[in-house]
Amino acid sequence: MHILLPGPTPIPEAVQEALIRAMSDHRGTLFGQVDVKVRTELATLLGAPTKDHIAILPASGTGGLEAACENLLSPGDRALVVETGLFGRRFREVAEAHGVDVECVEIPWGQAFNPQEIAERVRQKPYRAILVTHNETSTGVLNPVEALAQAIGTDPGAPLMIVDSISGVPSIPLTLGPGLDVIIAASQKGFMCPPGLAILALSERARQSVVSDTRPGRFYFDLRPYLSGRLPYTPAIGLWHALHAALGLLRAEGAFARLQRHRMLRDMVRHFARAGGLTLLVEDAVASPTVTALGLPSEMNPGDLRRHLENAGLQIAGGLGLWHERAIRIGHVGHVDRADLAAGLTLMAPHLPHSEQALAAMIPFLKEA
Amino acid sequence: MHILLPGPTPIPEAVQEALIRAMSDHRGTLFGQVDVKVRTELATLLGAPTKDHIAILPASGTGGLEAACENLLSPGDRALVVETGLFGRRFREVAEAHGVDVECVEIPWGQAFNPQEIAERVRQKPYRAILVTHNETSTGVLNPVEALAQAIGTDPGAPLMIVDSISGVPSIPLTLGPGLDVIIAASQKGFMCPPGLAILALSERARQSVVSDTRPGRFYFDLRPYLSGRLPYTPAIGLWHALHAALGLLRAEGAFARLQRHRMLRDMVRHFARAGGLTLLVEDAVASPTVTALGLPSEMNPGDLRRHLENAGLQIAGGLGLWHERAIRIGHVGHVDRADLAAGLTLMAPHLPHSEQALAAMIPFLKEA
Repeated sequence: MHILLPGPTPIPEAVQEALIRAMSDHRGTLFGQVDVKVRTELATLLGAPTKDHIAILPASGTGGLEAACENLLSPGDRALVVETGLFGRRFREVAEAHGVDVECVEIPWGQAFNPQEIAERVRQKPYRAILVTHNETSTGVLNPVEALAQAIGTDPGAPLMIVDSISGVPSIPLTLGPGLDVIIAASQKGFMCPPGLAILALSERARQSVVSDTRPGRFYFDLRPYLSGRLPYTPAIGLWHALHAALGLLRAEGAFARLQRHRMLRDMVRHFARAGGLTLLVEDAVASPTVTALGLPSEMNPGDLRRHLENAGLQIAGGLGLWHERAIRIGHVGHVDRADLAAGLTLMAPHLPHSEQALAAMIPFLKEA
Repeated sequence: MHILLPGPTPIPEAVQEALIRAMSDHRGTLFGQVDVKVRTELATLLGAPTKDHIAILPASGTGGLEAACENLLSPGDRALVVETGLFGRRFREVAEAHGVDVECVEIPWGQAFNPQEIAERVRQKPYRAILVTHNETSTGVLNPVEALAQAIGTDPGAPLMIVDSISGVPSIPLTLGPGLDVIIAASQKGFMCPPGLAILALSERARQSVVSDTRPGRFYFDLRPYLSGRLPYTPAIGLWHALHAALGLLRAEGAFARLQRHRMLRDMVRHFARAGGLTLLVEDAVASPTVTALGLPSEMNPGDLRRHLENAGLQIAGGLGLWHERAIRIGHVGHVDRADLAAGLTLMAPHLPHSEQALAAMIPFLKEA
């Protein structure tokens, strides 16, 4: 089965091999060394001060969102959520479930937030935190998170900025820095591993807040032991080994080359789709390098198309939320190259209004870069 | 590396192969079928009425304990915790973290609870729930959970019995039934998979309580979507496939044969250790079939012994809590046969006060059964 999904994504062979590495004592020296290496490498990749600013939790990405809310926000705290799609909505729901006093800026589907407008709003009223989505998986919009961090600045009274980058980093590089305090990621997208790990990177300010917080009421997602490297509960050993292998591949490729690769894949999908008669639901300027949502002509049913493709050996994702009835989503995140993408798009082409034009539009992308 | 640990445990080849099965859309039909098969098979294995009484969470086993407490207990509810070791203590801490009014029966380390005494206590005062450990991993004690369920009976006012069987089922069979409402398990011990999944089986009474509970305050561990098969957040796909393969192996072996195998391994460890000059810290009558804690002579240091063994290619577990300074633990849970155990014990023998006697004591167990 070919998969062009915004996660799960294809697993490189070296990562698969690491995944089935023999089990060992998670309190033993062998595994302890792997854990230190993984957290050290993640700290470098995500711009965290040390390995003890990285927490790896056996959980889905949503568990990472909840851990951030539980550890950095108290009931009654005021937080601003910038909602640019379904996963922004989820972040809001997680915060609300924990009693946070949420104010929400709802951005129309398919658009990115305006960093100056958000920064202005944050200046007008004190917020404990601002929760934003880096790469909105439901719409395929890349939000200008770094620009927002810059606009908010490093005023000591500035809110903590907590970023859901589950479908962003490391395919789309993002690092902690002034105005950007927490990055939440997951194992199954750009990290090229199977799902099962949530990853959190914390700034020194965020880490201090977590480790000095002795409120009761949390247990599994209490980040304090994870941040001290204590591996409080049985870690998902295979996934740690897999992540270790994947981090080696990521380092070898390099952040800029990786981003360029994903941008090229994005552009290839967009040229293919436009030429084939589909609608690009997101403008070029804010189009995600990792996932593309495409509108179908009214006579095409997304469910039917996906069933046909699955029978032909290709899985793509459906539209979500508002776009469920009219859109499909193509993932090009993680371990995907132009040949993988071409294989999938070729299977799609016969179903498009302009099949030949769609295929022809891929040609420039298939020539040596 | 040989491992004789109470988890992680060795992974059979068929399970390893399933683990690296190509990723697929977790909302697609292929994966949906695997999920249905896994939950249906788990329902049979754990005595749950239907697949919709089974929840599989991407988390460590402790996440399963927390999910049970969060979904079945409200702050202020009175619960009785029967604490027979470190993991009983953890169950208590999880309940306390969620504001449950916990009363605790502390059983001395190395002993099992008395079901009649606990049942008597439960009759004297109303409790919302009783939290017990089936197989206490820290001491190697098997608690009489079924006898307790029988003693408490099916009175509609009886408390929910919630059982941590993380190192018990399926190596030690346990099923839901009158007086036994929730079983919590994890992927990495008897289920022969890598760590990363918590498994909960609920009685009809427990399921009704969960699905009719609309309190806010939970998100990732809110069991309602999991019980409806909605896979609310990205599932740990590889582990689902692995569990599917493992369930096939478990079915092929059969529950009784499996229990007999683990009892034989337990007896082999005990004869070996006693003959070799170690102390059995738990009486035969309540000795766990899956993990054995052994006291060392005062001149032997458990940390030194474990380092020597690790250098020789064998990992065993250290003592926990009260027994940290004087004990080791040998795991014989999951995919372990007499040859695996013999390989490990043979590496241990030279370090024991009576090496030859220890080895000789294994001989009867190595003959064809």
